[in-house]
Amino acid sequence: MGCVQSFRECCDRPKNPNLRMSLPPVCFVWQISMIILFGVFIRYDEEADAHWIEHRHHENISSDIENDFYFRYPSFQDVHVMIFVGFGFLMTFLKRYSFGAVGFNFLIAAFGLQWALLMQGWFQSLDYTDGKIKIGVENLINADFCVAGCLIAYGAVLGKVSPVQLMVLTLFGVTLFAVEEFIIIKLIHARDAGGSMVIHTFGGYYGLSISWMLYRPNLDQSSRLQGSVYQSDVFAMIGTLFLWMFWPSFNSAITDHGDGQHRAAINTYLALASTVLTTVAISSLFQKHGKLDMVHIQNSTLAGGVAVGTAAEFMLMPYGSLIVGFCCGIISTLGYIYVTPFMDKYLKIQDTCGIHNLHAMPGVIGGIVGAITAAGATEAVYGREGLVNTFDFEGAWKDVVPTQQGGYQAAALCVAICFGIGGGIFVGCILRMPIWGDAADDNCFDDEPYWELPDDEETIPPPILEYNNHMVNMNMNKDIAESNFTVEPN
Amino acid sequence: MGCVQSFRECCDRPKNPNLRMSLPPVCFVWQISMIILFGVFIRYDEEADAHWIEHRHHENISSDIENDFYFRYPSFQDVHVMIFVGFGFLMTFLKRYSFGAVGFNFLIAAFGLQWALLMQGWFQSLDYTDGKIKIGVENLINADFCVAGCLIAYGAVLGKVSPVQLMVLTLFGVTLFAVEEFIIIKLIHARDAGGSMVIHTFGGYYGLSISWMLYRPNLDQSSRLQGSVYQSDVFAMIGTLFLWMFWPSFNSAITDHGDGQHRAAINTYLALASTVLTTVAISSLFQKHGKLDMVHIQNSTLAGGVAVGTAAEFMLMPYGSLIVGFCCGIISTLGYIYVTPFMDKYLKIQDTCGIHNLHAMPGVIGGIVGAITAAGATEAVYGREGLVNTFDFEGAWKDVVPTQQGGYQAAALCVAICFGIGGGIFVGCILRMPIWGDAADDNCFDDEPYWELPDDEETIPPPILEYNNHMVNMNMNKDIAESNFTVEPN
Amino acid sequence: MGCVQSFRECCDRPKNPNLRMSLPPVCFVWQISMIILFGVFIRYDEEADAHWIEHRHHENISSDIENDFYFRYPSFQDVHVMIFVGFGFLMTFLKRYSFGAVGFNFLIAAFGLQWALLMQGWFQSLDYTDGKIKIGVENLINADFCVAGCLIAYGAVLGKVSPVQLMVLTLFGVTLFAVEEFIIIKLIHARDAGGSMVIHTFGGYYGLSISWMLYRPNLDQSSRLQGSVYQSDVFAMIGTLFLWMFWPSFNSAITDHGDGQHRAAINTYLALASTVLTTVAISSLFQKHGKLDMVHIQNSTLAGGVAVGTAAEFMLMPYGSLIVGFCCGIISTLGYIYVTPFMDKYLKIQDTCGIHNLHAMPGVIGGIVGAITAAGATEAVYGREGLVNTFDFEGAWKDVVPTQQGGYQAAALCVAICFGIGGGIFVGCILRMPIWGDAADDNCFDDEPYWELPDDEETIPPPILEYNNHMVNMNMNKDIAESNFTVEPN
Repeated sequence: MGCVQSFRECCDRPKNPNLRMSLPPVCFVWQISMIILFGVFIRYDEEADAHWIEHRHHENISSDIENDFYFRYPSFQDVHVMIFVGFGFLMTFLKRYSFGAVGFNFLIAAFGLQWALLMQGWFQSLDYTDGKIKIGVENLINADFCVAGCLIAYGAVLGKVSPVQLMVLTLFGVTLFAVEEFIIIKLIHARDAGGSMVIHTFGGYYGLSISWMLYRPNLDQSSRLQGSVYQSDVFAMIGTLFLWMFWPSFNSAITDHGDGQHRAAINTYLALASTVLTTVAISSLFQKHGKLDMVHIQNSTLAGGVAVGTAAEFMLMPYGSLIVGFCCGIISTLGYIYVTPFMDKYLKIQDTCGIHNLHAMPGVIGGIVGAITAAGATEAVYGREGLVNTFDFEGAWKDVVPTQQGGYQAAALCVAICFGIGGGIFVGCILRMPIWGDAADDNCFDDEPYWELPDDEETIPPPILEYNNHMVNMNMNKDIAESNFTVEPN
Repeated sequence: MGCVQSFRECCDRPKNPNLRMSLPPVCFVWQISMIILFGVFIRYDEEADAHWIEHRHHENISSDIENDFYFRYPSFQDVHVMIFVGFGFLMTFLKRYSFGAVGFNFLIAAFGLQWALLMQGWFQSLDYTDGKIKIGVENLINADFCVAGCLIAYGAVLGKVSPVQLMVLTLFGVTLFAVEEFIIIKLIHARDAGGSMVIHTFGGYYGLSISWMLYRPNLDQSSRLQGSVYQSDVFAMIGTLFLWMFWPSFNSAITDHGDGQHRAAINTYLALASTVLTTVAISSLFQKHGKLDMVHIQNSTLAGGVAVGTAAEFMLMPYGSLIVGFCCGIISTLGYIYVTPFMDKYLKIQDTCGIHNLHAMPGVIGGIVGAITAAGATEAVYGREGLVNTFDFEGAWKDVVPTQQGGYQAAALCVAICFGIGGGIFVGCILRMPIWGDAADDNCFDDEPYWELPDDEETIPPPILEYNNHMVNMNMNKDIAESNFTVEPN
Repeated sequence: MGCVQSFRECCDRPKNPNLRMSLPPVCFVWQISMIILFGVFIRYDEEADAHWIEHRHHENISSDIENDFYFRYPSFQDVHVMIFVGFGFLMTFLKRYSFGAVGFNFLIAAFGLQWALLMQGWFQSLDYTDGKIKIGVENLINADFCVAGCLIAYGAVLGKVSPVQLMVLTLFGVTLFAVEEFIIIKLIHARDAGGSMVIHTFGGYYGLSISWMLYRPNLDQSSRLQGSVYQSDVFAMIGTLFLWMFWPSFNSAITDHGDGQHRAAINTYLALASTVLTTVAISSLFQKHGKLDMVHIQNSTLAGGVAVGTAAEFMLMPYGSLIVGFCCGIISTLGYIYVTPFMDKYLKIQDTCGIHNLHAMPGVIGGIVGAITAAGATEAVYGREGLVNTFDFEGAWKDVVPTQQGGYQAAALCVAICFGIGGGIFVGCILRMPIWGDAADDNCFDDEPYWELPDDEETIPPPILEYNNHMVNMNMNKDIAESNFTVEPN
């Protein structure tokens, strides 16, 4: 702990947010690396390759409609919207950080998905006959999922880091994610279709640890910019709603064809509906005069989708989904009311978007629900073939019984937490170096350091006030105001 | 009429919009009831159950792609967007009621769809062998449809009711809807894929009747908040466009597989395109200086989709769709110009969003168009099998001829209107009780009573005005302004 | 050149933007013409007709899922979102032209798609046995594509033309498009699935030529309205993101079933990701203090999708897509920095949205990339059947070899450029006539001439300032301000 402290101090040098010498080279170097690595490693899989027609005849596939594209592409597009519009606009709630929220989200997602295709490809889709990674629509979905982990982490540090730091956060985040996913899915053989553990738990703790490492004791110097305004809250609702609506697609995007996708969508739909009601209830109950708080509506309503991620493809039963959503709405909203201020004050974790309440905690709940549901699976409920299908009890895993699977799920949850916290501390150390161009404490939550901002004063034609026969423009813009204009009433 | 009047007066007690003692208990009680009822009644249908793989082999279904999920899930997601983003944002046009528009829409839709799954399930999907409701993706779409009826009604009372009233409106609305739908679809055997009658006519008159019952004679005290502002009109266009674009999915979501879905999408696409042109024409023609009115563009452009709802799956022919859209654009826009003010002044119906012009009237037109199209159906146009397929002339209905079917459609329209008006008056009575926490007349169309609002003044860095050597911040925020700050020029 | 100049002068009469006598008749006449022409010519194709069930049995099609609707409808909806929300909101960046951007985009798209169904139908889907055009979902997609060309052209003249001019621009644009497309696809037998040439090159040069013909030397009189404000830039990001996310659907919407759609989606996804990074890099590199410019993020990030349009269905390879995106991000951003100001100053082309950098130039690059990729195609890469399938080497074209096909692609590019420039100059001449109601030079980029605008001042409850015991409302609205209100401090 002492050494962390001293490392912190050694890094606290004056800040210079000019990115001209850092952002362009990073973008170019990384993009060129991507091109080279894609050239060496990445090819189309057999369903996207022009040989598909021969493959189809050879495999006796009756129709083009059985190409995986038609099973997954609509879900992929919904996930894509969640990543770019959902996460991007959810973070626009700050009054003066909408460009950064949407723009940097866009930048790191676009970079991250390329790196994710490579990392996940090496671990999971490598064709050992020719050493190539073969990609299809499922890889695109997985890359979007992988990026989601990093975007969650961005929520914790929103407004306090530079885009270069975000690129570094994403590079390491995707790498850690791919390793963690490989361990959880392939080695431990846990199931996690909607990523409660792999995406949300990992991403949440990764972001919180980084935020702890980057603690800014004087952040209250930016407190004037830390709230929302009316319009920015409405923009954020665009993000919330697209996340909420498309979450059934998120949780069902890579589950088994047929009943797997169907069931995952239903469970998620129900869990989310239930969450909305308890979120509203708790928000109103704990607020003065029973008023609702937009922060809760924007965030806690989504917690049910996170928490049902692992178990969505299991026979959780419709009422089971409602119960999960019910609990998560309560816990997540209480988290915003009590846990976030507590963490800020006592744990030195400044969590801008409250990802602990929206991702980390519901993710852990999701992992536990998944473990319990898996452990309780029976042939009576699933059918013999259904059980094998759902839990993939085939090949090396054909003798696994549901209780064992429950244990695997629990182990997977621990792996996700460890990777999140460990990875976050490691990456946080790197990001503390005073070379990344992050803004000073009194410049946080402000687009000004990183964006050319338009002059806003001219928008609204200003009203004119007659004042002792002098026309005084009440909304006069800065240029005029800063000139030697003086009203002398005497 | 007299008794209605005296009941009105008896209910007119002072208002207290503090919801702390009402909203949370309602949410909790209703959500817990949902969990219990879902536990007792709701299970997955065979296409979402883990037994699907066995069922598939048993039924000799060749591929997972024939799971209903792949026929309907993309349309379902589009409908879902219409319900939450479409309806939600369409109502954000008021200058200071965006939180309520999007937030309460979110709340009642999330509650309503759970209750709709139960109500519609009892009436239409109950499996009598085990007393369970079996749900799949089609039930989710129907639940969204059912909720749409209540959201339409919300449009009439937007800004004048409390969230608790909206929950009650939704509870009864969904119940009435399920009964009405059962009568129309199952007993009368009318066809109404896009719900011109079942959803729009019912929802429209339900909302208008409630608005009539809740008439506020002194609503002009809130007139300063009843208009839009520039930004809120742009937000509302998000709602308009998502409704407009996805309406083909709405009308085709639950039509027959194959040509049914295909044709419904084409007809709706064309009707909507045609409506846009006549809406623009009438808006420009009736406005001073030929200017366009955003209210018309936001609402009347959608009327064609409503009016083609019943007939979309029939052989309406492309030009038929264009004609329907053409007429509805004219009628709906004229409704905004003449009918809404008339209803407000003479009928004591205050219709905030003008749902009479967007849903009720086009819904009735849609019912009539459906009846005519059905009555005129011939084997020459549909083919023998096509006729049976399209109108479901099977089982007990195998001897029905198209002209009879036309009569059924007309009867269905009457049922929808009766349920709407009757149900609305009944629910309106309940909602007049002074226990629901609705806002006072001078507090309508304002988010302030129900939402924690951010301070807006800090958004724009204020210009500085030098004033006799005192720096006066022209946009100073409320806190400072309310302190004892005084400028003394003498 | 001289005659162009004198024609220009002859057209420069005083402007009257009152549309009451022009817009409504145009809308009515054109919509009624559409109804008549649809009545004469347009019918459902066999997959949307009620005879489908008989057709299915006759053709031995095993399942409804093989109806083209299920292959293309999800992509169609994505394209539809791009046309109405994507293009519409992308143009809302101007501070006071959001109504016009979204609203006129809506109007001309709704008109254009009807006319496109007819024009494209006559050229490509006419059934010579009965003289009818048979439409299905693919025709709807093609109509949306055709409209896209005109919306691109709108970008060049945004804020400078009246809605009637836009209707004329669209009428001729769609007509030219259909002819050009017929020549390129049917006569030359070029492939252009994503429309780099057919849509973007044509639309880009069409718009630029019109803008050149409509040159306004005194446009700087409107310069106060030519920029953006904070909120309008966030609105524009909605357009950008929906275009960016759904571009894979755009490029894959009408490609071959199976691997064709699959590959086109992957290539576009990768090209777009790569473009984001180089756009950010160049934007930061060329800006003072390394700040990012929202104009670049909003526009140049999309250039990769344009440039990969032609080659997306070919075996471009994942790294090939990245390279195309890499180059286009650089070129497009540099275009915004250098080319647009140059064109404005020296070529008299005022390109409001910079479509030269987003559509015209990347479209040309896309045509060249397509020609090279086609010319380099080999049986080793595509497989024998794959090569035939991908390039449609069947019927009259069965002896074409890839190098020849490369030549066809290059010829197609020239056709697109010629049609764009030639058509633009011709239509520009028509649009210069002083009868169309366009706004005066000092009224450009303003919604005021064409829209009823709400009063904005009342939005924010004004702060109160105590001033020598007089309460002075600092944000007082215009009505009060214009009355005889005077503060007398002495």
